[in-house]
Amino acid sequence: MQEIKLDSPFDSHLHLRDGDLLKTVAPISARAFAGAIVMPNLTPPIETIDAANAYKARVIQAIDAPFEPIVALYLTRRVKLDDVKRAKIVKLYPFGVTTGAESGAKNIGDFDEIFGVMQDCGAILSVHGESGGEVLQREAEFAPIYEKLAKTYPRLKIVMEHIGCAALANLLEKRENLYATITLHHLLYTLDDLLGGALNSHLFCKPIVKTAADRAALRQLAFSAYPKVSFGSDSAPHPKAAKERGAAGIFSAPVLLPTLAELFEAHSATDALRAFVCDNAQKIYDVKLPPKTVTLIKKPATVPNEIGGVVPMRFGETIGWSIA
Amino acid sequence: MQEIKLDSPFDSHLHLRDGDLLKTVAPISARAFAGAIVMPNLTPPIETIDAANAYKARVIQAIDAPFEPIVALYLTRRVKLDDVKRAKIVKLYPFGVTTGAESGAKNIGDFDEIFGVMQDCGAILSVHGESGGEVLQREAEFAPIYEKLAKTYPRLKIVMEHIGCAALANLLEKRENLYATITLHHLLYTLDDLLGGALNSHLFCKPIVKTAADRAALRQLAFSAYPKVSFGSDSAPHPKAAKERGAAGIFSAPVLLPTLAELFEAHSATDALRAFVCDNAQKIYDVKLPPKTVTLIKKPATVPNEIGGVVPMRFGETIGWSIA
Repeated sequence: MQEIKLDSPFDSHLHLRDGDLLKTVAPISARAFAGAIVMPNLTPPIETIDAANAYKARVIQAIDAPFEPIVALYLTRRVKLDDVKRAKIVKLYPFGVTTGAESGAKNIGDFDEIFGVMQDCGAILSVHGESGGEVLQREAEFAPIYEKLAKTYPRLKIVMEHIGCAALANLLEKRENLYATITLHHLLYTLDDLLGGALNSHLFCKPIVKTAADRAALRQLAFSAYPKVSFGSDSAPHPKAAKERGAAGIFSAPVLLPTLAELFEAHSATDALRAFVCDNAQKIYDVKLPPKTVTLIKKPATVPNEIGGVVPMRFGETIGWSIA
Repeated sequence: MQEIKLDSPFDSHLHLRDGDLLKTVAPISARAFAGAIVMPNLTPPIETIDAANAYKARVIQAIDAPFEPIVALYLTRRVKLDDVKRAKIVKLYPFGVTTGAESGAKNIGDFDEIFGVMQDCGAILSVHGESGGEVLQREAEFAPIYEKLAKTYPRLKIVMEHIGCAALANLLEKRENLYATITLHHLLYTLDDLLGGALNSHLFCKPIVKTAADRAALRQLAFSAYPKVSFGSDSAPHPKAAKERGAAGIFSAPVLLPTLAELFEAHSATDALRAFVCDNAQKIYDVKLPPKTVTLIKKPATVPNEIGGVVPMRFGETIGWSIA
């Protein structure tokens, strides 16, 4: 049977939530990946290293496989410089742009001192790059802010998270210290999948999936193993009822590696898969991961309609690949 | 109390459905309007004058107020020339573009003979103008088709239905025989209302609400009483369960005139309201309507959460105006 072996695959952008939902979703990622950057947009947000460590302990308690969760620090005006110095990743959310961004930055200039400290101590700045403008322009409108940050702090590694448009993809060549993560759903879908036929609320997320041209720019990066880009799922589970009230987020964790195998194979890019989901992240983030080989086999499997009260991406569909 | 008197307001684009749903929704329109062009996308579609007359009789049976329903004929390859000659309005749906468009036209050229007959006998061609392209470009991509139709049949009155973008609004000045209807929701909302914050599936419709610039172009027409444009609600009720499965359509009938009064007042355009909802349609369609004066008064009312199993637009909101 055809198979693909992945050494320590890494999810560079993951939401694991907390409480019962954490217990449901964390084992799913821990089975498929050797580690992840875990996002800090809990309620309340993770603003201290102590809170990050406590959350990391809860994540580890929820899983039963070797898995390294790297919890990012949520950048708010309450964050202390001492904690920034001890952080590996600091996450910047502009105010109000997505789930849990009510604690986000109203004025990025407020953090100049912190950015200076970060570039001195080698912490990575992870950014949800969307403006407060019209929904389809929000990412492109954020491009000048990325450029200014990259220029002002040339030794600061800045990761443009879950990029969904060509305008941001194009920045990677312009600024050496700009990096990016790309999700599975932005590689797969466009606005037409979300609302071109019937409305598919399960594909609603921020940033919104965009045009075929935007998707092509992202695919070009992923399928060419572009070294400044790593896979970050942005898997973001919401209970069914919250999703029905319109919450943004796609629960992709249960289908990530099999779907990536299918997609890369369909585009004759299987050779680039290891760079995209393993090697690039290890170089960009310089992480130490537990040794873990994940084997994908070409055996079809059907995605369940619901997992612990959450509807997964591709529910009811059959994927051509499985985790062995 | 401030009031606005409207003489025989007309809804130039209305979906009344059939069966129980017809009985729920028809009285709502009949209370507020003196008549409407009723769309023929039933199952099966209204393809003959006999079917149109039978449907018209069912509509009249469902209402208890003077109201003139003008049922459009659904243009399919089964439609007979004799019926076209007796029709006032013929509706062209490109194949598959919206609810009930599975019977629509795969090749508009198939209808050249019918279009020729229509312009000779004075029937009006009503068109859902969207291409099969990417969802946000579908209306703009249809512009050349409108132009070609208008040029090929210069005596055919062509109504561009529920226009939602500036590209189509701009055609009105270019071609004398192109007209348009505009909905309330395209005057009120943009993509940001649909999916800029939480996903609001109750604002999902075809054509999709678009950018602020598109909306501004439509407002410019409505607020200036532009004579080639009339109000057509495209009120399109779906039972709650169908809406939850992603059906396209907004049930706006219960809130139309009060919301229009509020909107036109907010933009100092109250003087244009009569042209937009009464006079223009009577000139464009040359309809005979039962005399009916509808009085709007500036008295707030709250929109119910559900009417006969259908969620109305603006449910739970308070509108500043009411029908007396």
